[in-house]
Amino acid sequence: MPEMWFSERQADGLLLSLRVERTLHVEKTPYQDLAVFETSHCGRVLTLDGIIQVTDADEFMYHEMLVHVPMLTHPHPERVLVVGGGDGGSSREILKHPSVVSLEVAELDERVVEASKAFFPALSVGFSDPRVSITFTDGTKYVKGKESSYDVVIVDAPDPIGMARALFEKEFYSDLYRALKPDGILCTQTESPIINADVVSRVYGALSTLFPIVRLYLGSTPTYQSGLWCYTLASKRYDPLDPDRLADARRRADASGLLVRYWTPEVHAACFALPKFVKDLTEAHQGRYRSP
Amino acid sequence: MPEMWFSERQADGLLLSLRVERTLHVEKTPYQDLAVFETSHCGRVLTLDGIIQVTDADEFMYHEMLVHVPMLTHPHPERVLVVGGGDGGSSREILKHPSVVSLEVAELDERVVEASKAFFPALSVGFSDPRVSITFTDGTKYVKGKESSYDVVIVDAPDPIGMARALFEKEFYSDLYRALKPDGILCTQTESPIINADVVSRVYGALSTLFPIVRLYLGSTPTYQSGLWCYTLASKRYDPLDPDRLADARRRADASGLLVRYWTPEVHAACFALPKFVKDLTEAHQGRYRSP
Repeated sequence: MPEMWFSERQADGLLLSLRVERTLHVEKTPYQDLAVFETSHCGRVLTLDGIIQVTDADEFMYHEMLVHVPMLTHPHPERVLVVGGGDGGSSREILKHPSVVSLEVAELDERVVEASKAFFPALSVGFSDPRVSITFTDGTKYVKGKESSYDVVIVDAPDPIGMARALFEKEFYSDLYRALKPDGILCTQTESPIINADVVSRVYGALSTLFPIVRLYLGSTPTYQSGLWCYTLASKRYDPLDPDRLADARRRADASGLLVRYWTPEVHAACFALPKFVKDLTEAHQGRYRSP
Repeated sequence: MPEMWFSERQADGLLLSLRVERTLHVEKTPYQDLAVFETSHCGRVLTLDGIIQVTDADEFMYHEMLVHVPMLTHPHPERVLVVGGGDGGSSREILKHPSVVSLEVAELDERVVEASKAFFPALSVGFSDPRVSITFTDGTKYVKGKESSYDVVIVDAPDPIGMARALFEKEFYSDLYRALKPDGILCTQTESPIINADVVSRVYGALSTLFPIVRLYLGSTPTYQSGLWCYTLASKRYDPLDPDRLADARRRADASGLLVRYWTPEVHAACFALPKFVKDLTEAHQGRYRSP
């Protein structure tokens, strides 16, 4: 049996490769190339257009940081929207919050949800919760015209290539601003500050023209480009760094017995401390919204 | 011209590969295989036994976090020892602290220093400083019999394989404890908490039996295994998390105009916040030294 390797071109001249034990599924969906492998190092891996979306080994790092920081910054998130997130990991984490009454998922590609249900039971578990409704549609269309509907919106998008590019544009963020309640919070994954510094800076800038409070924060996800990953939180009222909000996050995580492997109250506060080269990506946009 | 790639086997079934523009140097030293490449993604790269030690692109992330956290936790570090660190990056960062009077470097392999001088001028710059003395020797032998000699010791070791294994053992740490002054601080790189969890846990445990204060902290280094990197600080008197120490670190960095690209006062405080799965690596050893 020849040794098989999957390689992701993470940047020009940079490959991350995983030894493949078995190819479980390969499919051309209406939107993208979808594949599921069993790897020796990371367990099961789902790729879209050759880019790793989730692995059994480190999906918890990404999903916990994308979800719990905004969900615990908002004092009582009841109505939540996930744009993207077809694998289910974000939904699983959101549903750990007992205040949630309804969770809408707007995923473009039904085949991603089906593949997750078939091959990633620990990820797709949330989809069977009665509070969840999934709509298979373009997220940018789904949110158009929505007004004051959500407490929290999570944008769980793939890399900004092809269709997903629109999920990193100001027009979409304007629609999300309207779709959020007057005290709503938006959180979006924003790529690697090393490999995709331009994306980090551009999204931060666009959100800073719309929301009074914009905070970049970091987490680790080894199988994503550079292993260092950005999230951008944009908020109409609540500042995640407000000491009262931090204390509330800790209290509510304790009270609900939040089961986590990455997130801690300490990480929740610390993830906003940015290395200088990352902070620099936000500097040009400081104070653009608020007058001095 | 065929396309050339250097691949590091970062774990079983996991490769990181960099496209090589040019091989600048290959050598079998008395201790290891040394190579220097020019890569398209990371600039120049130095490898030992096939493992990336430094790259132009991200060496600053590693060296700044290894050095500035202990150097700014100690209120006035004058006498410093680096064990390993033949590339010079740690020395460069240590010499940014104006209190330093003498810096001893105990590096096993003279050829690493020579290669750095030839190919990494931005790294080896520190070696020409008159405060620096380099001794080519086994670090574990160098520190034997030293007593109360250093304010800060930095262990800038390669992965714990072969000769370097002894730099992760309790016997070495006992010798370093003696070699430190009564208020001395030791800091050692401790590998990836994902790929080398056993090393992280073992070093933390060994140091906890010797030092009253042991703190694990994290930084990002994309070309190291998993991109997430551990450092373990062991201290006889000063706690890096003491608010007075944190304030002093910020003040001294400001006063000296510390030129950095990764370290910030906020990162200095935040890097001790550990994701739950990393914190778990230290839990078994909590309270081993101090009685309840």
